[in-house]
Amino acid sequence: MASEHRIVRQIEFAETDMAGIMHFSNFFRLMEAAETSFFRSLGLPLFEEHEGRMVGWPRVRARCDYHQPLRFGDSVEVHLFVKEIRIRAIVFFFRFRKRIDADNVVAVARGEITTVCATADVRTGEIVSLPLPEVVLGRLEVAPKSAWGR
Amino acid sequence: MASEHRIVRQIEFAETDMAGIMHFSNFFRLMEAAETSFFRSLGLPLFEEHEGRMVGWPRVRARCDYHQPLRFGDSVEVHLFVKEIRIRAIVFFFRFRKRIDADNVVAVARGEITTVCATADVRTGEIVSLPLPEVVLGRLEVAPKSAWGR
Amino acid sequence: MASEHRIVRQIEFAETDMAGIMHFSNFFRLMEAAETSFFRSLGLPLFEEHEGRMVGWPRVRARCDYHQPLRFGDSVEVHLFVKEIRIRAIVFFFRFRKRIDADNVVAVARGEITTVCATADVRTGEIVSLPLPEVVLGRLEVAPKSAWGR
Amino acid sequence: MASEHRIVRQIEFAETDMAGIMHFSNFFRLMEAAETSFFRSLGLPLFEEHEGRMVGWPRVRARCDYHQPLRFGDSVEVHLFVKEIRIRAIVFFFRFRKRIDADNVVAVARGEITTVCATADVRTGEIVSLPLPEVVLGRLEVAPKSAWGR
Repeated sequence: MASEHRIVRQIEFAETDMAGIMHFSNFFRLMEAAETSFFRSLGLPLFEEHEGRMVGWPRVRARCDYHQPLRFGDSVEVHLFVKEIRIRAIVFFFRFRKRIDADNVVAVARGEITTVCATADVRTGEIVSLPLPEVVLGRLEVAPKSAWGR
Repeated sequence: MASEHRIVRQIEFAETDMAGIMHFSNFFRLMEAAETSFFRSLGLPLFEEHEGRMVGWPRVRARCDYHQPLRFGDSVEVHLFVKEIRIRAIVFFFRFRKRIDADNVVAVARGEITTVCATADVRTGEIVSLPLPEVVLGRLEVAPKSAWGR
Repeated sequence: MASEHRIVRQIEFAETDMAGIMHFSNFFRLMEAAETSFFRSLGLPLFEEHEGRMVGWPRVRARCDYHQPLRFGDSVEVHLFVKEIRIRAIVFFFRFRKRIDADNVVAVARGEITTVCATADVRTGEIVSLPLPEVVLGRLEVAPKSAWGR
Repeated sequence: MASEHRIVRQIEFAETDMAGIMHFSNFFRLMEAAETSFFRSLGLPLFEEHEGRMVGWPRVRARCDYHQPLRFGDSVEVHLFVKEIRIRAIVFFFRFRKRIDADNVVAVARGEITTVCATADVRTGEIVSLPLPEVVLGRLEVAPKSAWGR
């Protein structure tokens, strides 16, 4: 049972904007990268084709609070926590920290994504939410608020 | 004095993902496009170099609630409202609606961006927030909640 | 029968990088936007689901020569020309020009995309190239070199 | 003296498009990521502010030949080679290979970027090309054609 996961990324040139910092929309891509890595670490697919239907995790809510900018070359840790498990949805919480040197990190941002388990008809594209599969419920658990709520 | 603004965009192929819908992070880029168009319509710069300092609008918060997906070729209206004017920040609210046919639209998403007026030293990159300039205060006003809060 | 098409776009903030100019990869997205608009103007689908198979236009080659940078807010014309029609592929040529004022434009870049008509099995993802459909051959013709080869 | 460099990346969900494969424009971002990693490994800056002028590497040409698609989760090796060193420019050649299993890789694409050493005035944005700096000439050398021209 897992309730948290970390990835570390270096900010790419293409992720910056003319203000010299990572574009704010790219924080959401980093959250998704952490989620992908988390699911992979648990052997869970994030997206699969199954008997003519796609099963995936469309988002119903996303937010981010920005404290400090990220710049080209910065090394950032994206720390994912399972904040809530609902019947048909999971809420992930994310803390972004930038490594300054061997001993120091600085808080950069906090984010949250609410994602729904859903299936879509390949032909019509119609999306229907599903109860979380047993295989997901069997591997995820909620992280204690003391872990992420600081 | 302006309190709202609309843009219409067609969803590009490159904005979609393998789930066949616009990637959720691109909603934030559309919000920014509406904001850019709003500032331009008022003759206000969104980003400028001024005596060795850049003056811009870094984001301190962004969020989006997703109701319906957008697909390649969809025509979407992004409707911006000035929700709050603070000493050093503006809160923009956004409604996304997809045009179905001549008579019908469907609600797609709602978003919000809190953006701070700030200056950055070109050399050090240090960012300092500023009170909203007079020229901005003279052209923006808060939209009534009845306009956007439906 | 059509052999060329134009779109005009304004460069968005999110398309810039920390060098203060549009990131070079985004020129390819603008080429695709021109191609999408061209196909739409002819009533041709760029991507469709058909009896469990997707029919689309994967790229086999893309290139761009850059002469001048594009910056945030610049108005750029992307001018598409049909350069070659092959059995299974089309070669599009693109000229990018920036509008300076009412009377003047400046050449910004030239690009080329070779795209193949192909079908992919929805389940296996296997991609197979196809002869260009009659409906495409009936609406596209090659532009004279005098039009684009300047 | 270095003439080649490799990075390995996993394809992210946000890099895919509705055709279920990595969008063709993202190959150029991966080339740039390999170039960034190469410069970093040599202790060379890819972009720096110096006495009110930015020194960077704008692109004058980019191209890619696509052989096989990349999909979400694929592990791709981007192998950079120094193909040419000119007075004011470097030509990088790139081979993309996808790992199938422990023993097998498949050729996915080949690319090339011609990049110019240039300085830009922070205020005017005017870009001027420069002879390659001694520090760069002292650390890069051309890879033999036998290494990359297969």
